[in-house]
Amino acid sequence: MFKSIFLPVALLGAATAAFADEGQWQPHQLPQLSSELKRIGITMPASKLADLSKHPMSAMVSLGGCSASFVSPDGLVVTNHHCAYGAIQRNSTPEQNYIVNGFLAKTRAEELPGGPNTLIYVTEKVENVTRRVLDGLSPTLSGSERHALVAARVKALIAECETDKSTRCSVPAFHRGLEYYRIKQLMIRDVRLVHAPSDRIGNFGGDIDNYEWPRQTGDYSFLRAYVGKDGRPADPSPDNVPYRSKDFLVVSAEGLKNGDPILLAGYPGRTSRYKLPSEIRFARDVDFPAKAATITADLAIIAAATKDNPAWDVRYASVAKSLNNVLKKTQGLMDGFARKDIAAIKDVQDAEFRTWQQAHAGANKNLLTELDAVIARDMALQRQEAAWNEATHSDLLKSARTLYRLALERQKPDAEREGGYQERDLSFIKARLTRLEQSFVPSVDEARYKAALARYARIDGAMRPQGLDALLPTEAALPAMYRSSELADTAKRLAWIGKDPQAFRASNDPFIALAVRLHDAGMVLENGRNEIDGNLERVIPQYMAAVIAFKTSQGKPVYPDANSTLRVTYGTVSPYSPRDGLLKGPFTTVEGILEKETDKDPFIVPAALKQAIQGKRYGVFKDKALGTVPVNFLSSADTTGGNSGSAVMNGRGELVGLNFDSTYESITKDWYFDTAITRAIHVDIRYMLWVMKEVDHADNLLKEMTIKYPKK
Amino acid sequence: MFKSIFLPVALLGAATAAFADEGQWQPHQLPQLSSELKRIGITMPASKLADLSKHPMSAMVSLGGCSASFVSPDGLVVTNHHCAYGAIQRNSTPEQNYIVNGFLAKTRAEELPGGPNTLIYVTEKVENVTRRVLDGLSPTLSGSERHALVAARVKALIAECETDKSTRCSVPAFHRGLEYYRIKQLMIRDVRLVHAPSDRIGNFGGDIDNYEWPRQTGDYSFLRAYVGKDGRPADPSPDNVPYRSKDFLVVSAEGLKNGDPILLAGYPGRTSRYKLPSEIRFARDVDFPAKAATITADLAIIAAATKDNPAWDVRYASVAKSLNNVLKKTQGLMDGFARKDIAAIKDVQDAEFRTWQQAHAGANKNLLTELDAVIARDMALQRQEAAWNEATHSDLLKSARTLYRLALERQKPDAEREGGYQERDLSFIKARLTRLEQSFVPSVDEARYKAALARYARIDGAMRPQGLDALLPTEAALPAMYRSSELADTAKRLAWIGKDPQAFRASNDPFIALAVRLHDAGMVLENGRNEIDGNLERVIPQYMAAVIAFKTSQGKPVYPDANSTLRVTYGTVSPYSPRDGLLKGPFTTVEGILEKETDKDPFIVPAALKQAIQGKRYGVFKDKALGTVPVNFLSSADTTGGNSGSAVMNGRGELVGLNFDSTYESITKDWYFDTAITRAIHVDIRYMLWVMKEVDHADNLLKEMTIKYPKK
Repeated sequence: MFKSIFLPVALLGAATAAFADEGQWQPHQLPQLSSELKRIGITMPASKLADLSKHPMSAMVSLGGCSASFVSPDGLVVTNHHCAYGAIQRNSTPEQNYIVNGFLAKTRAEELPGGPNTLIYVTEKVENVTRRVLDGLSPTLSGSERHALVAARVKALIAECETDKSTRCSVPAFHRGLEYYRIKQLMIRDVRLVHAPSDRIGNFGGDIDNYEWPRQTGDYSFLRAYVGKDGRPADPSPDNVPYRSKDFLVVSAEGLKNGDPILLAGYPGRTSRYKLPSEIRFARDVDFPAKAATITADLAIIAAATKDNPAWDVRYASVAKSLNNVLKKTQGLMDGFARKDIAAIKDVQDAEFRTWQQAHAGANKNLLTELDAVIARDMALQRQEAAWNEATHSDLLKSARTLYRLALERQKPDAEREGGYQERDLSFIKARLTRLEQSFVPSVDEARYKAALARYARIDGAMRPQGLDALLPTEAALPAMYRSSELADTAKRLAWIGKDPQAFRASNDPFIALAVRLHDAGMVLENGRNEIDGNLERVIPQYMAAVIAFKTSQGKPVYPDANSTLRVTYGTVSPYSPRDGLLKGPFTTVEGILEKETDKDPFIVPAALKQAIQGKRYGVFKDKALGTVPVNFLSSADTTGGNSGSAVMNGRGELVGLNFDSTYESITKDWYFDTAITRAIHVDIRYMLWVMKEVDHADNLLKEMTIKYPKK
Repeated sequence: MFKSIFLPVALLGAATAAFADEGQWQPHQLPQLSSELKRIGITMPASKLADLSKHPMSAMVSLGGCSASFVSPDGLVVTNHHCAYGAIQRNSTPEQNYIVNGFLAKTRAEELPGGPNTLIYVTEKVENVTRRVLDGLSPTLSGSERHALVAARVKALIAECETDKSTRCSVPAFHRGLEYYRIKQLMIRDVRLVHAPSDRIGNFGGDIDNYEWPRQTGDYSFLRAYVGKDGRPADPSPDNVPYRSKDFLVVSAEGLKNGDPILLAGYPGRTSRYKLPSEIRFARDVDFPAKAATITADLAIIAAATKDNPAWDVRYASVAKSLNNVLKKTQGLMDGFARKDIAAIKDVQDAEFRTWQQAHAGANKNLLTELDAVIARDMALQRQEAAWNEATHSDLLKSARTLYRLALERQKPDAEREGGYQERDLSFIKARLTRLEQSFVPSVDEARYKAALARYARIDGAMRPQGLDALLPTEAALPAMYRSSELADTAKRLAWIGKDPQAFRASNDPFIALAVRLHDAGMVLENGRNEIDGNLERVIPQYMAAVIAFKTSQGKPVYPDANSTLRVTYGTVSPYSPRDGLLKGPFTTVEGILEKETDKDPFIVPAALKQAIQGKRYGVFKDKALGTVPVNFLSSADTTGGNSGSAVMNGRGELVGLNFDSTYESITKDWYFDTAITRAIHVDIRYMLWVMKEVDHADNLLKEMTIKYPKK
């Protein structure tokens, strides 16, 4: 029944078979895949890709949540439009609306400040610190003890590394704790907006086309890294100078065709590829449906509340957008799990592994029993955590809890504080508490909280944290709480930073009081989580080591789940068949933009773009096979959230596209990579260059980049 | 903007470019297209296809509304499941449900009577009788006079030809009266049901998939023609013997692939390819929206009335099905006209033609002025006719009007009667009046009529037939009329056949009385129609002659609009792109059936079929490129309603498929053939043979047919 999805490609006589390529590889793993890379036509040696200090990997940067790459020696960075959206938005006013009109700095002097949330992280060093994290941990530690000890060692490793405020270090776990790497990044904090097309290009199709194909979105923007005259990161200042990036990508306008190989480098956020069948069933049957129900309810409340209130509508626009995005992803997961019995597929794989493991377990005979037990406890706790989330589903309460926790943590020496409440985190906490004012209306928060408490009341009593019921406000109490709380006022909210715990305990503010009242119950859950995480961190690395040994015995390398660290994936330009008799992709064209044009967002086509299309002013960006300018294309590369803005390179390591989305059928790939239907969606760099030339006249940037044009 | 729809094919490297091939050619025209047929790979000489008395054309038959072909020397005919549906239905009982279970006669003795509506027409002779219809018509005749004279000559030509009840003759106009051909057909009236798959195969996807792709419908059935022992058609009798068809098609299981040429022969019903831009705008802006509104209202009334009444639901099921089909077609027309400005395209073509015509008009300078005038009058009358249709939108009233008209016509000698009311038509009238009981409930008819009268009342007064308002019943009068009319009783309804007009005029039955009262107003419209038709029949042939001369000057042959006569079209197996970035077809596979499977009609998959698919028992019917059994495929051939069941042949004239539908985007093809998106949907004969072998075990039929299997 599933075989057919491969067929139409063969049927249509496509020159190259389509391989979807699973694996978000750590760069150092690539030499193991050398022959596979060669087979699909990648000419750049795998060894070059393994070296983060060399081209092209040293051109890859993180924006914190998004990926990007340098495209000139002067710190010019290209990423997605949606990744630079905050920077565009903060510079826009009703009079000077860069969102709708786009923005182009014709000179460096015109480049605009990206704001405190626009940061560029350049990876400087990656070291394996597994030994320093794990050596000498006593096997008799409780989960909580182990978790605390590991966290303390990680914090120490970070503190040792972060020698100044320009350096950010992290020690992420790989394979959930089998290995730890310390990643040292240069954090550039003067980042300026250089160029963005109109969002009618950069976000064409908007939420409607999100996760969809056919797609015609010009999801690109340019930023520039600035540093002090000494070449080191500095606070934003007019005196700063462009960062001299030691590496950058050459841009190739020579184009790709169906079947061509691509490389993709970026910072994928999180995947769950090594979950047990029981965890997949839990996600499918419990977690996703509950999440979808909560978001659906929130969206309905927000829609009803903001319907006749444009000011509120603006305030909740980005909240609704983000909820819609998560909802679509969650629905995609549910649809995908309904379409294909991924749990059953995993059952088979899991059974094979277990048989092998038992035969090769040596002293580790009890591993699988232990694993199943700790996973079961984890799922039980997840249910309690989900109930807790409903019980505390209020922005005001969350602010109050953050403030009270911060006060408590600040009683301790910095090194002993809970991660997220250290001095290094303070500016982020402040920014978050400030930002709330942009997306908050008390009456809407009240309605959401009321609905959440009602959902909480419907949860099976055994699944609720013990004693929590009695601590929660009644529905009847909510109106008075929202009327009398002062936390909705940003200045008064921020004024709580720095106050001591006693001040909180003495407060009459109903949300501060609720936060104080809930604190112990919250700590019970948190300690339970630490205990379980500590056990997971002990058992899962052993499980992953066994999985790796099993796969190695079959000659297969194993990549770790995504953890926001730099990864490389590869694949080919290829269409896919979502259903029998139907083929999607691999390219869309500028003519498809006019097919979708309406007079309403998100399908308004800017006049200049329309004229260029209708005038067929394709120029050098015309694809020979297509007869026009391509806009987006599909590849079989393995991506996830965080890969937005990732450089898509041809086999020679030249920039040919930007990753920005994946298809609806691909959403389940975070759990199971289905080679037949998983496709990432990229902007074709030719469309970007064409719009820059024909529509936005960004000749200065076209000149600054090193662009290889096709031979006449 | 439209160019892109061609692109993905090129893009995917499909071996053969896709050409959609406009033209429903009269067989005698094919030699003009000889080089084009060769170019696409048809090896059978065009001259062979031109001769209706020779293979393969002499194997093509009509079922009256559907097309079919002989596939054995013993009168075995293959057509669509939906074309044989009446025969299957009339033999089905709740105990012996051949609709759901399918039917297979294992021996000839088991073959079941098809019933009076299942007829096979074998074309015996086609003669050009243009001269006999048109010679000596005075140019000074009024439209009505000309129309009457032409109708009388046509009737005489038919009467001369129909020497016995086994011969049916017709004299259809081509190019709306430029040419007339007399077609003599043998009408075989003992037709038996031989084999039909379950409608879960034959109508898989049902109304939901109607006009849709991807499609997986096994729309085939087998009938057999029986004749008297003398070889001549005879009334149904156990003594009859299979008809010795002088020709039949060889069936090829060798299969087609993308880009392969096909020939398609059948009886397309009606197209409007030569309409003026003004007529297209009238259809688009007036006719289609009104039709859609009427049907939508009818469907709502039927749905509401039958919701809680299973017996009524059954009675209106086929009415609703047919209304839904027309509605979907009408909506497809509206969508298609909205998607592409066909009127504007025709404007350009029309202007080119007019310029040419004026330069080559000779004595015919006024032709276009005359044409425009008569078309304008035609459209004005169509508005009145539409109003009339609303005013008489009752099954009871229509029955009464038929009966009264019949009584009036029978006062005249048979030859002078209006077509449709002659002795030759009597059995059809009776059958229709009888059949009403299967699809009629007085209260539903009353609700439909009431709504139609309300719609009539909203029509601009100037668009209503003069004097009609005063003749119509008021809404208040309807309940009493329906209560007291006896016409709802079939026996009483039929009893009116044979009564004289005076009996009607004396009747108290409210619907008989209404029919009598409306008669004169109806005749005014009918006479107006005759006058305009007479003028159209005079002017349009001159217009068509000029169009033909214009096209001939460009080296292009011209085919006449479809008129239910035998036509040949050709094309290639080819996918199409309904939108940028998306490609549909050209094949679906048996795996696609399971993709669509649900536990509800029309997506229930019979267990035996499911087992065959899951067991991959593809056998010799496995397509090498697909790796499985194909189900349906798309071709660029030019088809329309009436082509259902048409033989789809490979370049050697062997049967490789059955035509049964076209895609949603193709619906506008009746008005404008858009080569990029027009695709017909065919059953792949390999699927039919595979199901017959693996699911229905119809080995007797597989043995009876001459099947060429692929070489091992």
